[in-house]
Amino acid sequence: MHPDLLTALRAALPADAVHVDEELRRAYGHDETEDLSHPPEVVVRPRTTAEVAAVLRLCHALEVPVTPIGGRTGLSGGALCVHGGVGLALDRMDRIVEIDEGNLQVTVEPGVITQVLQEAVAARGLYYPPDPSSRGSCTIGGNLAENAGGPRAVKYGVTRDFVLNLEVVLPDGTVLWTGANTLKNATGYDLTRLIVGSEGTLAVITRAVLRLVPLPRENRLMLVPFASAEDACTAVSATFRAGVTPSALEFMERDAIVWTMKHTDGLPAQLSTDPGAYLLIEVDGDHGDALMRDCETILGVMEAHGAGEVLFAESASEKAALWHLRRSVPVSVKAHSVYKEEDTVVPRFALPRLLAGVKAIGARYGFSSVCYGHAGDGNLHVNIIRGDLDEAFWKEELPKAIREIFALTVSLGGTLSGEHGIGLVQRPYMDLVFNPAQLELMRGLKRLFDPKGILNPGKVLP
Amino acid sequence: MHPDLLTALRAALPADAVHVDEELRRAYGHDETEDLSHPPEVVVRPRTTAEVAAVLRLCHALEVPVTPIGGRTGLSGGALCVHGGVGLALDRMDRIVEIDEGNLQVTVEPGVITQVLQEAVAARGLYYPPDPSSRGSCTIGGNLAENAGGPRAVKYGVTRDFVLNLEVVLPDGTVLWTGANTLKNATGYDLTRLIVGSEGTLAVITRAVLRLVPLPRENRLMLVPFASAEDACTAVSATFRAGVTPSALEFMERDAIVWTMKHTDGLPAQLSTDPGAYLLIEVDGDHGDALMRDCETILGVMEAHGAGEVLFAESASEKAALWHLRRSVPVSVKAHSVYKEEDTVVPRFALPRLLAGVKAIGARYGFSSVCYGHAGDGNLHVNIIRGDLDEAFWKEELPKAIREIFALTVSLGGTLSGEHGIGLVQRPYMDLVFNPAQLELMRGLKRLFDPKGILNPGKVLP
Repeated sequence: MHPDLLTALRAALPADAVHVDEELRRAYGHDETEDLSHPPEVVVRPRTTAEVAAVLRLCHALEVPVTPIGGRTGLSGGALCVHGGVGLALDRMDRIVEIDEGNLQVTVEPGVITQVLQEAVAARGLYYPPDPSSRGSCTIGGNLAENAGGPRAVKYGVTRDFVLNLEVVLPDGTVLWTGANTLKNATGYDLTRLIVGSEGTLAVITRAVLRLVPLPRENRLMLVPFASAEDACTAVSATFRAGVTPSALEFMERDAIVWTMKHTDGLPAQLSTDPGAYLLIEVDGDHGDALMRDCETILGVMEAHGAGEVLFAESASEKAALWHLRRSVPVSVKAHSVYKEEDTVVPRFALPRLLAGVKAIGARYGFSSVCYGHAGDGNLHVNIIRGDLDEAFWKEELPKAIREIFALTVSLGGTLSGEHGIGLVQRPYMDLVFNPAQLELMRGLKRLFDPKGILNPGKVLP
Repeated sequence: MHPDLLTALRAALPADAVHVDEELRRAYGHDETEDLSHPPEVVVRPRTTAEVAAVLRLCHALEVPVTPIGGRTGLSGGALCVHGGVGLALDRMDRIVEIDEGNLQVTVEPGVITQVLQEAVAARGLYYPPDPSSRGSCTIGGNLAENAGGPRAVKYGVTRDFVLNLEVVLPDGTVLWTGANTLKNATGYDLTRLIVGSEGTLAVITRAVLRLVPLPRENRLMLVPFASAEDACTAVSATFRAGVTPSALEFMERDAIVWTMKHTDGLPAQLSTDPGAYLLIEVDGDHGDALMRDCETILGVMEAHGAGEVLFAESASEKAALWHLRRSVPVSVKAHSVYKEEDTVVPRFALPRLLAGVKAIGARYGFSSVCYGHAGDGNLHVNIIRGDLDEAFWKEELPKAIREIFALTVSLGGTLSGEHGIGLVQRPYMDLVFNPAQLELMRGLKRLFDPKGILNPGKVLP
């Protein structure tokens, strides 16, 4: 540790904001990425923007790395303190500052948990759609940093599409707002959207003004089985082509369902494990009869693609059970085995080719995978299962297979990550999607914001 | 002119791509901003990305200014060649390269006229919503450069929200793509959205991949009169609070209607000129009965805010006439008098205060104004009418009044421009919304992309 760091931090911040005990450092040293652990040397837990600015000014002067930490649910290692230094945990900045019902906006601190925000605005008849599977524990700050998506992105858009304005602290401690609290803004360069998705490498977000929409009054939810996973994927793009935009269109392979069913109570019926895959399809809106007609259109598309018997959720509790099933998939897959998760994304029509290609690569290298994800967005989470594969394969052979998966993704017009970010673990594959000119431009952006390279070093750029 | 410029351009490009005759230079020397004229020294009209790259490489080497020129419908002077040099007209790059019905995407060159694109995709049952009033002559390249909006932004979003990927040429001639053709993308910094709205100062857009949505099957359109313009503005935010998101919610003051009616045939009825203002409200979707119920909700809100008798468009031709009325307002106001148009935007609940404040400032300075715009987005176009105001007032006093209007806008949480951009004419007011730290960050972005400052110099940054 830098010899002056602790003294300086303790002089600048309240006593209960600076921690060095090992248990706490370990707790802030991991997220949900594989089994990785990179604890900070000091955990700092500020309560105000001024305290964040003080930490950054200090670390900037001493050239100490600072890694912003949100809900620690990340899947690309973005919040891991790979160079030690200060772990800047934003979890104490968790106030919903204002719900502005006149303008359908909400102002929040970064540590607000996504589901807490959703429930607070729903109580006023308002809706904040982005909802990662981890919404019960992830935070808005982390969602902004990674440009998180979730099932509703297919109709409503990702986190980026709900951000109006951000208060950020630059690496040198300068505090500034990136835009204005307006729905439209053509005033200067779009700093707001440059910060969103920059994974805490350009600035620390300390406050966000988010757009809300009226809460839809109704929804319908159905689970559609397919004998073949590829047929399920083919039905996805056909749904939109039939003129319907579902509010969710999720894909789950058989194993994802089987491993998760064990942990899920209250399902509408005993699910068959015969189908190769399921689609979970939701439509929402204000008029039940119109939604039923949309469902009929969807059913027509599903039948045309060989779907089995469709299971409609009949009640709020059945809907909750089906969503619980879907949201529990990542945790269940993780509980089943050590794994590596790739967040591949392609134009949605290419989804069947991506899935077939992933399976072919797996067969060739000798690993099995479980795939699920936001099929309506072409976003497929590929979970490679460790099972009893040996260490040498996992460490040396598997990265070559992952490279092939990503090369396939790129060849289909896709890219490395749809919503998890690059963080630490996808960094070695950035050369597959960006050429030296593109990377140099990105490095220039990093240098502009963070010339000393103190903010979340070792992430995003190779 | 740089002594080597013309020779070098003629050596590098086809003969019919380089023009110096005065008539053509004058034609490419204006847009729709006031009566300004800033012709380039040379007009270059490339047909390919390679030709655009050749022009930039050359101008980069010779340090000659290059100003990208689209449909010349801009309202902030963004395409004016204020430093002479090369006017890089993209109007020959006007191909719709591919309409991808499997993925609901379209690939276009920048010179495609917005309405041409809309009609081409509508023929396939698809919809590209952003539609500036000038959609019959503006181009996608210009829309991207200014992040254009239009009436449908209130439901669907602005140009930025429909861009997936851009091919751009950097000022030194490097060609690169900014992202991937995917709906979601969390892979590296968001170069795509940094280019959108950068007004041709960072890079030249040579190809764009845009997102489409299914074309809504039905819509309903109504014109709602109000005795008081402020009541009309108040009804705007109440509409959303009632749970309805219209596909357009447009505001027009009495004079905007009166001046425009003269030029509009086929209106559903003779409009009264008694009302102080009108709202034009559209809802769209796939189910007519659901839309009628939305209309009933809207009518309830309108009545509660003192609306007069609502005029429903009964047929496609009546709808077209009402939209023609709305779209003709800018041209009619312009035909009425020399004017200055400000593109103010505030959180929508603040619209009545903005309108009242604009009128109070006008009364104090002694000018009249006609206001209209995209009220659902809080975006009010303030047209200050020259009438018989003298030159000294127009040149010296008026800028002070405009400063007051913008200061009011900012005090209401708004900003300078919602959809027209800063370009040339709003540059003097940038200090009202951005402090030195924010401006320095933006200048840094400009230097990163364009260290020699050759691309569209004299725009955006003060």
